[in-house]
Amino acid sequence: MNISVAQINYHVGNFELNSKLIIDAIHRAKKEGSDLVLFSELSLTGYPPHDLLEHKDFIESCNKYIDIIAAECTGISAIIGAPTINTGDTGKKLFNSAIVLSGGKISATINKGLLPTYDIFDEYRYFEPAKSFKTITIKNLRIAVTICEDLWDEQEFDPEFSPNRMYSISPMDELAGEKPDLILNLSASPFSANRNKMKNKVFKDKASKHKLPLIVCNQVGGNTELIFEGGSMVINSSGEIYDTLNLFEPDFRTYKLEDIKGTKSESDLREDNRIARIYDALVLGTGDYFSKMNFNSAILGLSGGIDSAVSLAIASEALGKERVRVLLLPSMYSSQHSIDDAIALADKLGIKWDIINIADSYYQTCRSLEPLFSDKSEDVTEENIQARIRAVFLMAVSNKFGNILINTSNKSEAAVGYGTLYGDMAGGLSILGDVYKTDVYKLAEYINRHDEIIPGNTISKAPSAELKPGQRDSDSLPDYNILDSILYQYIELQKPLNEISGEGISHKLVLKVIGLINTNEYKRYQSPPILRISSKAFGLGRRMPLVARYQLT
Amino acid sequence: MNISVAQINYHVGNFELNSKLIIDAIHRAKKEGSDLVLFSELSLTGYPPHDLLEHKDFIESCNKYIDIIAAECTGISAIIGAPTINTGDTGKKLFNSAIVLSGGKISATINKGLLPTYDIFDEYRYFEPAKSFKTITIKNLRIAVTICEDLWDEQEFDPEFSPNRMYSISPMDELAGEKPDLILNLSASPFSANRNKMKNKVFKDKASKHKLPLIVCNQVGGNTELIFEGGSMVINSSGEIYDTLNLFEPDFRTYKLEDIKGTKSESDLREDNRIARIYDALVLGTGDYFSKMNFNSAILGLSGGIDSAVSLAIASEALGKERVRVLLLPSMYSSQHSIDDAIALADKLGIKWDIINIADSYYQTCRSLEPLFSDKSEDVTEENIQARIRAVFLMAVSNKFGNILINTSNKSEAAVGYGTLYGDMAGGLSILGDVYKTDVYKLAEYINRHDEIIPGNTISKAPSAELKPGQRDSDSLPDYNILDSILYQYIELQKPLNEISGEGISHKLVLKVIGLINTNEYKRYQSPPILRISSKAFGLGRRMPLVARYQLT
Repeated sequence: MNISVAQINYHVGNFELNSKLIIDAIHRAKKEGSDLVLFSELSLTGYPPHDLLEHKDFIESCNKYIDIIAAECTGISAIIGAPTINTGDTGKKLFNSAIVLSGGKISATINKGLLPTYDIFDEYRYFEPAKSFKTITIKNLRIAVTICEDLWDEQEFDPEFSPNRMYSISPMDELAGEKPDLILNLSASPFSANRNKMKNKVFKDKASKHKLPLIVCNQVGGNTELIFEGGSMVINSSGEIYDTLNLFEPDFRTYKLEDIKGTKSESDLREDNRIARIYDALVLGTGDYFSKMNFNSAILGLSGGIDSAVSLAIASEALGKERVRVLLLPSMYSSQHSIDDAIALADKLGIKWDIINIADSYYQTCRSLEPLFSDKSEDVTEENIQARIRAVFLMAVSNKFGNILINTSNKSEAAVGYGTLYGDMAGGLSILGDVYKTDVYKLAEYINRHDEIIPGNTISKAPSAELKPGQRDSDSLPDYNILDSILYQYIELQKPLNEISGEGISHKLVLKVIGLINTNEYKRYQSPPILRISSKAFGLGRRMPLVARYQLT
Repeated sequence: MNISVAQINYHVGNFELNSKLIIDAIHRAKKEGSDLVLFSELSLTGYPPHDLLEHKDFIESCNKYIDIIAAECTGISAIIGAPTINTGDTGKKLFNSAIVLSGGKISATINKGLLPTYDIFDEYRYFEPAKSFKTITIKNLRIAVTICEDLWDEQEFDPEFSPNRMYSISPMDELAGEKPDLILNLSASPFSANRNKMKNKVFKDKASKHKLPLIVCNQVGGNTELIFEGGSMVINSSGEIYDTLNLFEPDFRTYKLEDIKGTKSESDLREDNRIARIYDALVLGTGDYFSKMNFNSAILGLSGGIDSAVSLAIASEALGKERVRVLLLPSMYSSQHSIDDAIALADKLGIKWDIINIADSYYQTCRSLEPLFSDKSEDVTEENIQARIRAVFLMAVSNKFGNILINTSNKSEAAVGYGTLYGDMAGGLSILGDVYKTDVYKLAEYINRHDEIIPGNTISKAPSAELKPGQRDSDSLPDYNILDSILYQYIELQKPLNEISGEGISHKLVLKVIGLINTNEYKRYQSPPILRISSKAFGLGRRMPLVARYQLT
């Protein structure tokens, strides 16, 4: 029995492209003498299709393409993922299904039983859970086909207040009763830098518990916020990893079932380099955002600071230097070294740059406001005007030349609201919005690992927004080491305030920081999409009420 | 048996305030000789608490306040809504519960069985559904206590592709087996202008089916996008409405159970005036957004057009004229009649207005961009610069004086992307973002029903963004009557493209309009919160993928 794993980068809702990619993989599998080719969860629609699933013609199109793909499945079987209609009298309209194609038609449909509905997942919004589970047989082999979360019934969550076991059924325990020879899993499991070990453990534990080989096919590629890492896995019946497909790119491999016995070293999985994996994820997520949105090129404002420097290096890697341009937008408060550092970086990367001094526009705006502001002293208003005028220039170039503005804010700033709405918070995509400032520095070092791309001065100088003379981030914020530790404990680990601790962390400081997080929900409500690399990013997966008051103690 | 219904405006997460309001109502009920006082769903936390529910200290605070409220329940029973911890081995961490307080303590806890997870609802994200249902007994009366959706198992949805019956169990059918004397329902049911009749029907049908009186306590007030209309209902055992509490304001009434027999005329429910109810809802939603966010005052840009005029009238009604100010921001393309109309409206309402001509800032910005734009002809870029400069001025005044910017876009514009991101799409709250342009006109007429508040010229003139000479909306968009009909059929009714029809609607036009809706998801992604008055608003309840391509045919 030969089984192929097709790890593909799908485009949500693009049935024409997705079906072509699936059919190409079926043809390749045939050529390689495969009996079965496995695809990922909701492969035909791409994951996540969100509310497109509520549209009747979307589901009807989907069915049309299932038939087209089925017609290619002669002399081979394929298992694809797609929504199917629940024809029962009650329950949600759809199932999240694995569709087995053989002999030119649909030979079986398996429905997902465990529907993740937490963080970025909304599956119970659309799907009825399967309540019973049956194996299928292909070429005398009895196979337990599972869909992603179906194998995650024993997962552990980061926050201690999470449920022990979220589900009261275990599809694999039920399937085990039929004594299958093999477990397959169609996955759409997004990247999270801190959960790689845990993810491996979930699958290894299932294989060893049931003493069965397990083949997992994961989706690869970026879809808006979510980055799917690929890294599809083949695990032997002892629960050891036999092989993994490439991370962060499409891949295709064929296995002889009887060969799945040995193991690979864990280091081949690149588990040891968190920052390298974050970098690869951000490059993939940025590239796919542009290609799948059919956007040709990017623009960003280059300040000479670390955030725009790292954003630029990643955008340049993702899109190619000729598809990125930058604007330098110095003001009367910009230091010469900032301008020099920005130019040095752009030149080093071979990126086209232009410079517009914003001072004239700033002073003109202030003159126009003088009749209203005459008796008022300068405050944060004037800082925000500078940031917003920069956005006017960046968006003007964006509109005129079709470059999409990249937002350069990091997660630490986004958390505490250290940014200007419609100013530096603007953009079509935030590359670093899920990366804490301390990790932005580590990314800069990683980018410089072979050669100094980002000027040393950009890395070593004290962070500053340069919106007034001599301004530094540390005027308003604690040290980023301390700040990021508080943020991580509150956002990712969801610790109660009185349990947030560490060096330099007082309860008073915790109250201040969490207060800032809460009062700045209104800014993040209007944030661009943020590439998600953590287990809890701002955006889709973190739904805090905007109008709310929760007494901090 | 006397039963009080306490229809209260809660503040999400504000336990101190919510518990005070609850305790005040308990005291009032005691004074009025009540045996039982009924509150709404999740009354202690306010609905919806969203991801605050994932925080351990939030739930612990909640428990503390339940005890405080319980202590007041001597000589009376109260039923409040609150999350409770699922102490079982499996399932979600929480239940969505009705907590019965008697004799100074918790005497029973009833968990919700049907968890809405569609549109704006995410309840399965947090809650484990109850699987069995039991009545409670208070003063020898057997009561079926249900929580909101528990009575909605037979509801009909607007789109034809929706499930027949979303749930496979019916809590009330199970409870009926215990032969209760009365049904109670704790609700948090948001306003939707087109679903009022349907909402009444759901409850009337349940009462008549089970031949039991039904008392529904709904939440009232605005929480970010959602506006809860109140209108709590008392229905007799024949399924007729005996009484309703006030719409759009807190209310409190006490009933003798044996009196619940007659009926009220349907017209008392104001069902006949959809526009009046939308107006009341928007006034409540706007007022509560400001008061609950602790925002003192508002600002908006007044153009002389219909959208900003209606937004201003509503804001002025909600906040009081002294808490609103406007800026007139004419450009070289603004007509004198627009300026005159804007001033006439502000003066009529007694609203402070200032005027800043944006031409100088506009020309300065263009001059600064000249080195980059020299060989490029004028296009939409220059229009967007004007819109964005207006946002810079509005946000500057907002920052300097603390006025929150009100966004004045309507649903038709938001749908087709007829607006400038970081320009006229900016703001802290969108009052009209769920109101189609044709309804904006009806709101204007409603506002003028006693007296001409909004100048006739503002209503009668052809809509224009005035971003270039002689520009009219009709240059780029179909007539709003036609446009709104297409939008409604696609957004609210989710009709397949080939079923969207009506006078003046060709398939080609449908393709064009739906294409615009889809390609402008990226703009709406960064939209301010929009007050929801329909069954499908942009924002929280409509989750379309941003990165997607769905072939329209």
